[in-house]
Amino acid sequence: METGPSNPAASVVVLAGGVGGAKLAHGFAQLDLGSRLTIIVNTADDFELYGLTICPDLDTVLYTLAGIANPVTGWGILGDTANTLAMIGRYGWPTWFWLGDRDLATHILRTERLRQGARLTEIAAELAAALGVTARILPMSDQPVRTIVETPDGPLPFQDYFVRRRQRDTVLAVHFAGIEQARPTPEVERALADASVIVLAPSNPIVSIGPILALPGLRDRLVDHPAPIVAVSPIIAGRALKGPADRMLASLGHEVSPVGVARLYQDFLDGLVIDSADADSAPAIEQLGIRPLVTDAVMHDEADRARLARETLAFADQLRKGRH
Amino acid sequence: METGPSNPAASVVVLAGGVGGAKLAHGFAQLDLGSRLTIIVNTADDFELYGLTICPDLDTVLYTLAGIANPVTGWGILGDTANTLAMIGRYGWPTWFWLGDRDLATHILRTERLRQGARLTEIAAELAAALGVTARILPMSDQPVRTIVETPDGPLPFQDYFVRRRQRDTVLAVHFAGIEQARPTPEVERALADASVIVLAPSNPIVSIGPILALPGLRDRLVDHPAPIVAVSPIIAGRALKGPADRMLASLGHEVSPVGVARLYQDFLDGLVIDSADADSAPAIEQLGIRPLVTDAVMHDEADRARLARETLAFADQLRKGRH
Repeated sequence: METGPSNPAASVVVLAGGVGGAKLAHGFAQLDLGSRLTIIVNTADDFELYGLTICPDLDTVLYTLAGIANPVTGWGILGDTANTLAMIGRYGWPTWFWLGDRDLATHILRTERLRQGARLTEIAAELAAALGVTARILPMSDQPVRTIVETPDGPLPFQDYFVRRRQRDTVLAVHFAGIEQARPTPEVERALADASVIVLAPSNPIVSIGPILALPGLRDRLVDHPAPIVAVSPIIAGRALKGPADRMLASLGHEVSPVGVARLYQDFLDGLVIDSADADSAPAIEQLGIRPLVTDAVMHDEADRARLARETLAFADQLRKGRH
Repeated sequence: METGPSNPAASVVVLAGGVGGAKLAHGFAQLDLGSRLTIIVNTADDFELYGLTICPDLDTVLYTLAGIANPVTGWGILGDTANTLAMIGRYGWPTWFWLGDRDLATHILRTERLRQGARLTEIAAELAAALGVTARILPMSDQPVRTIVETPDGPLPFQDYFVRRRQRDTVLAVHFAGIEQARPTPEVERALADASVIVLAPSNPIVSIGPILALPGLRDRLVDHPAPIVAVSPIIAGRALKGPADRMLASLGHEVSPVGVARLYQDFLDGLVIDSADADSAPAIEQLGIRPLVTDAVMHDEADRARLARETLAFADQLRKGRH
C-alpha cells in the first residue's frame, strides 16, 4: 500500500483524456484513495459506430483502473480478440476502428443502457463497479459533445481524423459540437466542489482536456477554485509522448513545450509538473505565475505512475501551504 | 453439380424454421437452383437481447447456406468464440443465450440497418449477398411477430421457454403476438405466386412452420395454390430429431407421428415425405388425401441433404403429373 496524500480526507480530482490520463489516474488509484479519487473524463471523442455508442476515453480509463488494459497499446483489453470485427469486415462494412470482442461488450451494454434511458454517468458507475474499480470515473457530461477537427480537406469528426485518417491532416481549428447545450454533470460539479486537489493529466490539451474546460461554467470554477490545481505536461522535449498533441499545438499557433501548455492553462493553473528534459522551461513557466516541478514525467511502468501521482500530490500540498 | 428439377424454370419455395429447415434448404441449394430457390423463414422466434435484434432461424439458414454453420450444433458459426459474451457475464448481465463473436456481427449490423429504417427483408438479402449465398432467404414478414408459449408457470417469450428454461415447461398453448398486424412481405407473396413447388421443411410444425402459416392470408394461398405442396416430416419414429416438437405436439393434443403432422397440414398438403421407420403410417396418411413418400428422411450429412431435396422434388413432380 502506497502512502496517501498528507490530508487523509483529501479528495483528488483528475481531469483526463485517454491513455496518458488513464496512466496517471492509475497512479493515483495506487495511492489507496478509494472513492476519494475522481476521474473526470473527456467524452468529446465519443462516437457512434454500427449503432453502438463508443466512449474511447472512458473505456481506456476504466480498463486501466480495472487492470485489464492492453499494456502495449494503452487502450483496449489485454489479450482481446477481434472476431466480431473480422466478420463485420466479411459483411463488407468498414473496419477502420479496431474493436476487440471483449471491448464490444462494453459498447453493447452501454448502448443498451442509454436506450433504456440511463445517464452515461450511471452507466460508467455500473461498469466500473462490475470490474471492481473503486475510484469514481465520471464522464464530463451526460449530454453528447463531439469534437470536430477542421482540416484543409474540410471538417472531420474526431475519430475520422484520429483513427481513420491516422492524424495526417493539418489541424486548422477544433470545435466541440454540442458544447453549448452540454453541462457538467451534478456528479462532476460535486466532485469539483469537494476537491482538495485538482490535477490535469498529461492528456492532449486541445482535444482531451480542452472539451472538459470548454463545458459551460467549468473553466470559471477552476479559476475561482480554492484548491491547488496542478497539471502534468503532456509535452516532453518538444514532443507528445503519444498522439498528435505536438503537431496540433503547432498548427494552432501554440508553442510546443511545457511553456505552451502552461499558457493554455494560465488563468487557473497553480503548478506544472514537467520532465527533467524540459528543466530549462522552468523560469518561463514561473514568469507566468505558475510553479514548475521538475521530475521524471515519463510513465514507463506502473511504479512510475504511482511515483508521479505521489510527487504530484506532494507538489500540490506544497502549493497549498505556500498560499497560506 | 447435382441434377436440378426436371423443369429448369422450376421455382422452389421452402418454408423453414431453424436447424432442420436449414439442412433441407441446404440440400436444395446443392441442386444448382440459384435464385430460383427461395427460403421463407420463420421470424416468430426473433427476440431482442442487449438491444440487438436476433433472428435465430434466419441466421441458421444463412450460415448453413453460406457453408459456415457449426456442424455440431447446427446453429452458430463454425469455430466461433464467445469472448464478448464472457465479458458481458463479467459485467453481471445474463448470458443464457449463447452468442458467438462472429455471430454477433450479424446481430449488430442487422440492428443498425433496422435502426436506419431498412426492412428485415432487405437486410437478409444484404447479409446473404455478402456471404455469397445465391438462394433468396426471405423473412416471412417485415413486421415483428413473437411466439409466446403458455405454460403452467404462465406465458413465456419463446427464447425464455426454448433456451433459458431448456424446454422443460409443458406447453399448454402457443400464440404469435403481432401476427394480426403482420403481413407476408411483397417478396414472400411474389415467391409464392411464382412457385412451381412448395416444400415445408422438417421444422417444428407448431412454432417454426406454424407462424408462417398463421400470417394473414398465407394459409389460404397454399390451399388455393396450383403447385404441388410437399412436407418433410419432422417426426420420425415418434420423436423429433431435434427440439421439443414431439412433446409440444403431444401436450397440444396432436398425434406424435407423421400422421399427426399430416393432419396439421391436411387442408393444403399434397404429399408428405416420411422416414422408412414410419412406413406403417403411409396408409393413414393416404386416407387423409395426402400422398406419402417413404424414404430415408434423416439428414446425417451434406450428401443426405441433397438426396432428400432431390427425392422431394422428384416426388413433387410426380404429384404434379398425377393431377394433370
